[in-house]
Amino acid sequence: MKENVGRPILDENDRLARDNAQKLAAAGLTGVNVLASPGAGKTSLILRMLEYLKSFGLAGAVIEGNAAPSIDSERVRSQGFPAVQVNTGGGCHLDAAMVSHALLELGVGHAVRGPGAVFIENIGNLICPAGHRLGEKITLVVASVPEGDDKPVKYPAAFTIADLVALNKVDLLESVEFNPDAFATGLRTVNESCKVFEVSCRTDQGIDSLADWLVRTIRI
Amino acid sequence: MKENVGRPILDENDRLARDNAQKLAAAGLTGVNVLASPGAGKTSLILRMLEYLKSFGLAGAVIEGNAAPSIDSERVRSQGFPAVQVNTGGGCHLDAAMVSHALLELGVGHAVRGPGAVFIENIGNLICPAGHRLGEKITLVVASVPEGDDKPVKYPAAFTIADLVALNKVDLLESVEFNPDAFATGLRTVNESCKVFEVSCRTDQGIDSLADWLVRTIRI
Repeated sequence: MKENVGRPILDENDRLARDNAQKLAAAGLTGVNVLASPGAGKTSLILRMLEYLKSFGLAGAVIEGNAAPSIDSERVRSQGFPAVQVNTGGGCHLDAAMVSHALLELGVGHAVRGPGAVFIENIGNLICPAGHRLGEKITLVVASVPEGDDKPVKYPAAFTIADLVALNKVDLLESVEFNPDAFATGLRTVNESCKVFEVSCRTDQGIDSLADWLVRTIRI
Repeated sequence: MKENVGRPILDENDRLARDNAQKLAAAGLTGVNVLASPGAGKTSLILRMLEYLKSFGLAGAVIEGNAAPSIDSERVRSQGFPAVQVNTGGGCHLDAAMVSHALLELGVGHAVRGPGAVFIENIGNLICPAGHRLGEKITLVVASVPEGDDKPVKYPAAFTIADLVALNKVDLLESVEFNPDAFATGLRTVNESCKVFEVSCRTDQGIDSLADWLVRTIRI
């Protein structure tokens, strides 16, 4: 019964996600779905990527998902990048319909054109967002050192679908208990092929390497 | 339509949650529902509380919720406390039926009797667990310094229902950007009355004060 109720909704979401992907591709843009726990550093990392893309003459824009009324999009706009806010009203993930509206509001294909990327900052949650495609080409999971090295095995839903994992806040490696080998081993048990970068938005460590990978992927 | 589908399930959950609360009360036990982001330090804090309760001659046991197959309960059992594991198979929150089974498995009223507490470690997620009562008397939300000072306003669902907030990892206050006043102000906009303790499971700072509050609440 539960399955019968759920399936048409998921199919409708998948159909809209395909539409979003086509709309982004037609505008020369790569959709990047950004998943993480609350406070892992999604917005900070997106801002670093936007600056890097800009320095290469590439376009960048953001769809900011929040579960409560929030003004994260203003933080992005104040840095000079296009951004729209999507508030889910307590909902635990974005869906393709929300992103479809946001792409219209951003002016994708008109005001915002590629080559470049649209970052979709999902709700801070390692479970529910993983079940809903949005039209992304790349799924970026941001983990952070203070969360501990066991997150890939404890929250496989997000890590399994990642194309790219950014292990953020590596400047705190000396301050907390975190075994990078255990993190890497755990990640490989749920995802053999994703690309992994150790980064710190605070010290800029690793940001160039991650952004460089992104630029090359966008240009393919 | 969505509401019609959802309502009977929520009512059934509420009914089971009341049964769980009665079963715990009849055994002299206080249910503590522990909510947090992934990696905020739920298990570590619960272990500290168990040791403290034991030193006061109070009983303590744990229901360990995980979204993926995990053995967090063994970490608790290895410290000499009763614990049972509940794996949600990818589900984003515990529900009252899962807890009802776990209370049976723990032997509440038989092997496990009060005065004391049963800690219910929910799935790491600040949104979905907040919508499902389990039979708890106390809702404890564990926030952590590296997540940032804006979490109460960004994830009000959990913080609004908290009776008790533990701000963990305060040993990292010097290492990250975190404004304790902003955290306190944000928390008070969503929850005027909850009790708040600054703690560190690493240095033991504040643990005695938090545990002391818990002991007094259990004995009321």
